[in-house]
Amino acid sequence: MKIQPLFDRVLLKPIESKENRASGLILPESTSERPRLGVVVALGDGGETDGKPTKMYVKENDIALFSRYGGIDVKIDEEDYVIVRQTDILAIMEEN
Amino acid sequence: MKIQPLFDRVLLKPIESKENRASGLILPESTSERPRLGVVVALGDGGETDGKPTKMYVKENDIALFSRYGGIDVKIDEEDYVIVRQTDILAIMEEN
Amino acid sequence: MKIQPLFDRVLLKPIESKENRASGLILPESTSERPRLGVVVALGDGGETDGKPTKMYVKENDIALFSRYGGIDVKIDEEDYVIVRQTDILAIMEEN
Amino acid sequence: MKIQPLFDRVLLKPIESKENRASGLILPESTSERPRLGVVVALGDGGETDGKPTKMYVKENDIALFSRYGGIDVKIDEEDYVIVRQTDILAIMEEN
Amino acid sequence: MKIQPLFDRVLLKPIESKENRASGLILPESTSERPRLGVVVALGDGGETDGKPTKMYVKENDIALFSRYGGIDVKIDEEDYVIVRQTDILAIMEEN
Amino acid sequence: MKIQPLFDRVLLKPIESKENRASGLILPESTSERPRLGVVVALGDGGETDGKPTKMYVKENDIALFSRYGGIDVKIDEEDYVIVRQTDILAIMEEN
Amino acid sequence: MKIQPLFDRVLLKPIESKENRASGLILPESTSERPRLGVVVALGDGGETDGKPTKMYVKENDIALFSRYGGIDVKIDEEDYVIVRQTDILAIMEEN
Repeated sequence: MKIQPLFDRVLLKPIESKENRASGLILPESTSERPRLGVVVALGDGGETDGKPTKMYVKENDIALFSRYGGIDVKIDEEDYVIVRQTDILAIMEEN
Repeated sequence: MKIQPLFDRVLLKPIESKENRASGLILPESTSERPRLGVVVALGDGGETDGKPTKMYVKENDIALFSRYGGIDVKIDEEDYVIVRQTDILAIMEEN
Repeated sequence: MKIQPLFDRVLLKPIESKENRASGLILPESTSERPRLGVVVALGDGGETDGKPTKMYVKENDIALFSRYGGIDVKIDEEDYVIVRQTDILAIMEEN
Repeated sequence: MKIQPLFDRVLLKPIESKENRASGLILPESTSERPRLGVVVALGDGGETDGKPTKMYVKENDIALFSRYGGIDVKIDEEDYVIVRQTDILAIMEEN
Repeated sequence: MKIQPLFDRVLLKPIESKENRASGLILPESTSERPRLGVVVALGDGGETDGKPTKMYVKENDIALFSRYGGIDVKIDEEDYVIVRQTDILAIMEEN
Repeated sequence: MKIQPLFDRVLLKPIESKENRASGLILPESTSERPRLGVVVALGDGGETDGKPTKMYVKENDIALFSRYGGIDVKIDEEDYVIVRQTDILAIMEEN
Repeated sequence: MKIQPLFDRVLLKPIESKENRASGLILPESTSERPRLGVVVALGDGGETDGKPTKMYVKENDIALFSRYGGIDVKIDEEDYVIVRQTDILAIMEEN
């Protein structure tokens, strides 16, 4: 069974700080206001509002920097995930 | 007598945590902030706002992951249901 | 003298819990957050907003499930009524 | 000198509870949350918002049921009036 | 030097309660929630929002009844004025 | 190096109360709620919102009366300036 | 690995007060309400809202004056950055 997010929602698998350090981006756990990193696991098709489609700018496997606020925690098969709206994703981490 | 939700509202029959575990999705009751699972029992046709129709993205028998906030509890024939707006449904659980 | 609601407002005659039980829907009075049932007695024609008409989805004699919040209590000829906006009506109860 | 309300505003002369009883509608003064009755004395032409005209659904001499909230009290020639926006008028009382 | 209000703003010279009484409209100073009377001294041309012009419904020398809330006090040449948005003007006083 | 405001923002050089008195407009510093006077030093081109351009109604060297709220203080070369949105400018002072 | 902001977000490298003084703009650290200066390191393409594209008015290497509110702190390779929405950028510093 898999999760299919609705509208512009994105399911993220948070990345631990250790992995972050390896990628050159350090987001210490002690600073709770800092945004988090996560891998895009699944996403909605944007849906539509007032008859206008919402474009999705992220795709599966993207590494997303997302705000700690607005995310909803979900546990699937003993693992932690977060569901956010696309607008709560601040940036995508790209390879140089 | 049956309930016909209006606008984009969806009537859900919450699924117990035991059933959840069977489906591989575990949402412990002790964590009150976590979203809940429920089966779509009935739904409105979306209605329209400012002359524009609202599309419905869920259908009867869908298993929905929905936010604990915004839902309204209703008791029908001694059983508990929840009425939510479609936008409070985070994702649909699909068979692999 | 009768009440003609304006815009999308609906005048409802609340149904007692006893009648509710007969119809299979039980909404105990002790749980104040639960929605209430009421019969549609009169309704506005929707009016218009920004030049666009508002459609009415309920009609006289419908049995409506409505939110306790947002309703305004009115007493007519010693009987209690409630005026709600159509959007505060969650669902319509239909015969099987 | 007379008052000409602007936009969708309506000048109302509140009706005492005694007169209300005569018309079959009883709104006891002791229940402060209940809406009030008033006669439409003057009204604006609706004005326009974003280039779209606002329709007026009430007319002079209508008996209006209006919300206690949002009204502004005005005293003219020793008599009390209330100015409300048309959207704060819940219903119009019509002769049977 | 004169004040030219921007957008839909209106510069008003408040009228004392004594003058009010003469015109038949009494707004006792002791009731601070009551609206005030003022003469329109200058006004903006409405400006535009989202490419749509805002119409002005008042003109110089109009006697305006305006809400106490939202007005900004200004002192010019030792005299007190108030700047309000046109939407805070409740009504215009017209000669019979 | 100069400041180029973005969107509908306006950079103002506040005028002291002494200069105000000379121009006939007195805004005593002791009354903190009163609006302030300032000379327009630089302004944005309005930018656009939802594809529609925002018109600018002020120009360099205008003397603006602006609300104390919403302004952001900036210090440039030891002098104090304020950045406001055009909509926080109440009026322009014009020569008679 | 580099950060690619989404929508109208802008990644800024804050400039220290010492550098600010060199450029003639002094924003003392002690005044916490004052806006900050930063160099634009990366920016989104604006994205679109309701089917309408959002224009970007800043570009890489611009020196931006931005509000302290609304910015999100991010640490990359031991250095501090801030992510803001373009609308939180007050002005661009240009060479004379």
